[in-house]
Amino acid sequence: MIITVLTLFPQQVKNFMNVSVIGNAIQKGIIDLRCVDIRDFSVLPHRKVDDTLYGGGKGMLLACDPVFQAWKHAVNESCTKPRTIYLTPKGCVLNQSIVSELSKHEHIVFICGHYEGIDQRVIDRITDEEISIGDYVLTGGEVAACVVIDAVSRMIDGVLPDASAFEKESHMTGMLESPHYTKPDVWEGMPVPEVLKNGNHAKIEKWRESEGIYETYKKRPDLFHALPVSAEQWQHIIQREINDREGDAK
Amino acid sequence: MIITVLTLFPQQVKNFMNVSVIGNAIQKGIIDLRCVDIRDFSVLPHRKVDDTLYGGGKGMLLACDPVFQAWKHAVNESCTKPRTIYLTPKGCVLNQSIVSELSKHEHIVFICGHYEGIDQRVIDRITDEEISIGDYVLTGGEVAACVVIDAVSRMIDGVLPDASAFEKESHMTGMLESPHYTKPDVWEGMPVPEVLKNGNHAKIEKWRESEGIYETYKKRPDLFHALPVSAEQWQHIIQREINDREGDAK
Repeated sequence: MIITVLTLFPQQVKNFMNVSVIGNAIQKGIIDLRCVDIRDFSVLPHRKVDDTLYGGGKGMLLACDPVFQAWKHAVNESCTKPRTIYLTPKGCVLNQSIVSELSKHEHIVFICGHYEGIDQRVIDRITDEEISIGDYVLTGGEVAACVVIDAVSRMIDGVLPDASAFEKESHMTGMLESPHYTKPDVWEGMPVPEVLKNGNHAKIEKWRESEGIYETYKKRPDLFHALPVSAEQWQHIIQREINDREGDAK
Repeated sequence: MIITVLTLFPQQVKNFMNVSVIGNAIQKGIIDLRCVDIRDFSVLPHRKVDDTLYGGGKGMLLACDPVFQAWKHAVNESCTKPRTIYLTPKGCVLNQSIVSELSKHEHIVFICGHYEGIDQRVIDRITDEEISIGDYVLTGGEVAACVVIDAVSRMIDGVLPDASAFEKESHMTGMLESPHYTKPDVWEGMPVPEVLKNGNHAKIEKWRESEGIYETYKKRPDLFHALPVSAEQWQHIIQREINDREGDAK
């Protein structure tokens, strides 16, 4: 998969992605990450790319032309028509199904705004989709690009060492994951749940599923409402609630 | 403000944050960013910090003790009790009001999971809050930490060159921002809206407000429902809808 990032800070994105699992995928050539400096496409002195807002107001805006030329450069380097995404708090809010959909493209171009953003006309002209990583304000699109690249890259074949290890992660299945434990057996007086130590895999599976449902019930009622819950799992939820309340009362 | 990040990749976070607006704030000492390597607190050979899951399953889990010792180190270096946040897809989903609340703390400690996550017992013991940046899966907590640090830091006095420039950004006011335009006056046949060029500031303010409401209406009906909308603004929405539909029909 080719991923092009149009940005004022190409080195920042490149350095960040070049670490751990995604860094390995880049080194192996599974992900071809191209960070393009929008300033390289300025025709003005001092590589200027921004200007003041029409109608007044503080802050600067990225002008149409450098963004457009950088984008044309990225498109010309590609055999297929890339999917062009503008990262903006006004975009559609990212979720795991958008991530899955994006991971099917051969080439994605991300456009990172900075300062007050980008002139609306070039956005209207070149973008296929506007994406927001969440309902909060960031200083620029670079960190949002890193989030989307990380989430999408890990869906590509060969990026994760063992994809099956991650199929049950929170949001892959519409529910949250059960808690996990490792050695030691007892830490600071807190034991690992008995069921995880008895080697009965059917029981362990059932416990993990029920605990995942319980976590979703407690922490994300909005996701819980969409889950199928068996009578046995309802029993588990009720028992956990009773235990929790007794714990609080002590 | 002191921000401590407990991570397996301290240099990745440090390098990323050391750029642009937040980088300047770090250099000026407004933000004191401390990236702590969890491996420094391993007592095992090869600085090992992870182990297999109780109950079986693929992937590795960060063990309690190195995380706990790294956290104690961060707390001991602080005069105040820091707010400890675990970044996890199971957490409360970040929004701008959580960002505002976080920006009031003197010291925040972020814990970044990696691999399959962290042993639940140390999470239960040390964290005040679990935060998720959105409903998608990432390879580790580092990029999520960068998102929260960026969003929180820009709220701190002195970080943005002119805070008033940013008060009308999307999500600061519960609605999306109006589109912005800069020179040239006409780009690839597309003109800047007339109203932005006539210098009538009251009219420009009114247009921006109405366009912001229209953007919210089109792109985020969930946010639109909570907005107060005047009769005049409803007229603007209807006129824009009519124009858009005529445009589509052509």
